[in-house]
Amino acid sequence: MSLTNASPAEAAKAAKLASHSLSTLPTSARNHALTAIHSALSQAKDEILLANAKDLKQALEAANNGELSLSIISRLDLGKKGKWEDMLKGILDVRDLEDPVGKISLRTKLDDGLNLERVSCPIGVLLIIFEARPEVIANIASLAIKSGNSAILKGGKESTESFIAISKVISSALELTQVPNNAIQLVTTRDVIPQLLQQDQYIDLVIPRGSNELVRYIKDSTKIPVLGHADGLCSIYLEHTVSPELAVNVIVDSKTSYPAACNSVETLLVEEASLDTLLPQVAEALLAKGVSLRCDASSKAALTSKLPASSSAILQDAEEVDFDTEHLSLTLAIKTVPGLTDAVTHINTHGSHHTDCILTSSSELAESFIAGVNSAGVFWNTSTRMADGMRYGFGTEVGISTNKIHARGPVGLEGLMIYKYVIRGSGQITVSYGEGEGHKPFKHEKM
Amino acid sequence: MSLTNASPAEAAKAAKLASHSLSTLPTSARNHALTAIHSALSQAKDEILLANAKDLKQALEAANNGELSLSIISRLDLGKKGKWEDMLKGILDVRDLEDPVGKISLRTKLDDGLNLERVSCPIGVLLIIFEARPEVIANIASLAIKSGNSAILKGGKESTESFIAISKVISSALELTQVPNNAIQLVTTRDVIPQLLQQDQYIDLVIPRGSNELVRYIKDSTKIPVLGHADGLCSIYLEHTVSPELAVNVIVDSKTSYPAACNSVETLLVEEASLDTLLPQVAEALLAKGVSLRCDASSKAALTSKLPASSSAILQDAEEVDFDTEHLSLTLAIKTVPGLTDAVTHINTHGSHHTDCILTSSSELAESFIAGVNSAGVFWNTSTRMADGMRYGFGTEVGISTNKIHARGPVGLEGLMIYKYVIRGSGQITVSYGEGEGHKPFKHEKM
Repeated sequence: MSLTNASPAEAAKAAKLASHSLSTLPTSARNHALTAIHSALSQAKDEILLANAKDLKQALEAANNGELSLSIISRLDLGKKGKWEDMLKGILDVRDLEDPVGKISLRTKLDDGLNLERVSCPIGVLLIIFEARPEVIANIASLAIKSGNSAILKGGKESTESFIAISKVISSALELTQVPNNAIQLVTTRDVIPQLLQQDQYIDLVIPRGSNELVRYIKDSTKIPVLGHADGLCSIYLEHTVSPELAVNVIVDSKTSYPAACNSVETLLVEEASLDTLLPQVAEALLAKGVSLRCDASSKAALTSKLPASSSAILQDAEEVDFDTEHLSLTLAIKTVPGLTDAVTHINTHGSHHTDCILTSSSELAESFIAGVNSAGVFWNTSTRMADGMRYGFGTEVGISTNKIHARGPVGLEGLMIYKYVIRGSGQITVSYGEGEGHKPFKHEKM
Repeated sequence: MSLTNASPAEAAKAAKLASHSLSTLPTSARNHALTAIHSALSQAKDEILLANAKDLKQALEAANNGELSLSIISRLDLGKKGKWEDMLKGILDVRDLEDPVGKISLRTKLDDGLNLERVSCPIGVLLIIFEARPEVIANIASLAIKSGNSAILKGGKESTESFIAISKVISSALELTQVPNNAIQLVTTRDVIPQLLQQDQYIDLVIPRGSNELVRYIKDSTKIPVLGHADGLCSIYLEHTVSPELAVNVIVDSKTSYPAACNSVETLLVEEASLDTLLPQVAEALLAKGVSLRCDASSKAALTSKLPASSSAILQDAEEVDFDTEHLSLTLAIKTVPGLTDAVTHINTHGSHHTDCILTSSSELAESFIAGVNSAGVFWNTSTRMADGMRYGFGTEVGISTNKIHARGPVGLEGLMIYKYVIRGSGQITVSYGEGEGHKPFKHEKM
């Protein structure tokens, strides 16, 4: 790992060159580098926490002057209970994942002695732009090395001292391994993001880790493919045959277990037939958890007639914009729909294609919803918050993608891979194949 | 299929809406639509060839006035021997391919009654921009319908009459099927490409089919992902242990069987040890086929001392730019390298990551080349021209991609697919899982 003051173009070029040798290292060499990083960081705990304390001190001052929000302090603090240990454990977790490099996904005998294979290989150079959290640097370095990709890291300026300290330790650790130092580079120069985003000649994929605003800015500012999601406008469709208990549990979990998460529900689509039966219990449970309900006219009328006055008094009127808003807070928009078709249409046009769910006892309706909803996650009778790489069993999560190509939903190491087609031949030439005399057909046998 | 005079934004929005129902049609309905298109086109041969004749007439006039190159005439002509039949056969070939929709690539039991699946689904809306060849419209409509994607087609103006005639026939044929008419739209309005390229809200993927200039212009003009390749700068590394016969055959095929193709070889990297042994025979064979050889100093010296004066007299001197040029003609640049490492470095820095090849009898060197070269196709002892969807056995080819994400190399129907994660649950909520009392772990069993 090198701590670079090089220009963005030089850094990107060096990362690309390093990626060529990193991509050919055997599994053992890449895993060994992760072990080396892990032990070097373990040993350097004190000096890193000292650097982190400097960042914290500066951030506190800035917060006191009103220049920084207090929520950043907590994200900055590497000394917070469990954070350091989690960071170190994360490195070994990634090391112990299956090697994503060199997996064969297709093997065809084109002819005798002429075999085609499709083999997974690293994408090349990743640019990771992230905000304050200093532990991300160790996590991303691990993911990059494990997957054989070079990475250029650009972190938020609030964590500069922590980043530099961690990066120096990783750098010395890598000196003793086969991973080229330029494969992982930390850029500390200020205001270089626009220039980095122009290096499409060298950088193959940008991964923003941070706020919606950061992701949206990056998507709008580069020709390099971006892996990420700006919005998480998730919906649940409440069909009338589901049990009240299931509906209450799933909706409360989807809305309240972590309202600021991208996989929390933002819109509840209520079937007309559920208005008087299921909705009142669901609404009571949500109100009890402090959720603000923004209701359309039908749902408000139904709730007003069924709920005690104290509850119905705090119902709010939904405006059109509520059905296009990711509230990221304890606010839920409620809309009434005649049935499944309208629910699916609403989701496909107003949603963000992140994760959407149907609650129903009918498997037929569920399958129709699953086929019709065009989102990265489509769930039946479970919480939208299940949309997560750890819950899916991916071992690690690079991010969540709402892209429509390459990788979608929670992205693990697989999302950092592409493939190459390899042919091993024995002198075959194309003019020998085809129709007519003197030509032969390809065999195209799956192997 | 609709022939639209709608604005690009309206056309794109209509295509997106149509994609939602197209994507849920069963295999049989999509295949039936292809059968219907095939028979409608068969019956309408005369009127389509009549429209094509109008295009041809206008193109001939333009060519006579020097406004159009003559090579376009041949590409325009649907009446050319075999072209009409090939177009019709292509529709049935696509119909008979395996359905790419609904393939399950991952199945995990997260917990009892909570199952995760990753299921292939269409990407959504494709924008296909192509040049004069009128048969492309039938090919693309077939690929789109088979893969469940909507498509907006914008063809070169020289084929307008043919496009309109074909599009009307396809449109009437689709009226009798379940494929929504707006799923396939032909845009005939002039000068709308820039506006179409701005519809990233509705269009998910752009596929340019045409010249390098067209592809490069499109890549530079849109935020929508582009599936294509602008360059095909392929190289062959000639290692000294390969048999002269194999070397001559493969290099001649790679250079001369279709010099204008993107998978033809442009640079021959000669190992020093091959200069006096293999290169002279290779050069003689190439010269005999009319290939211009642009040699670096070492290769020119070697050839001059070995070849008859009549041959060595026509050798040319390579300039640096020759090693960064896709000649697309009977011109080959020759560069001497000390060995494998330099060959790999040259390819990774000067090539276009399309297809590169090593000629050697050593499997060890071949595997090292295969691991080190960062290209969509890496071949050992076979012609670079093998890089082709039909030769790979994909049944059809959407295009060739030198992108580093999503799809790489020859792209078949698979390249038009993405996936969604589906969870079928029975009321499970996220707060039940985790560590500590009252929580349980996920099972994460592969199914």
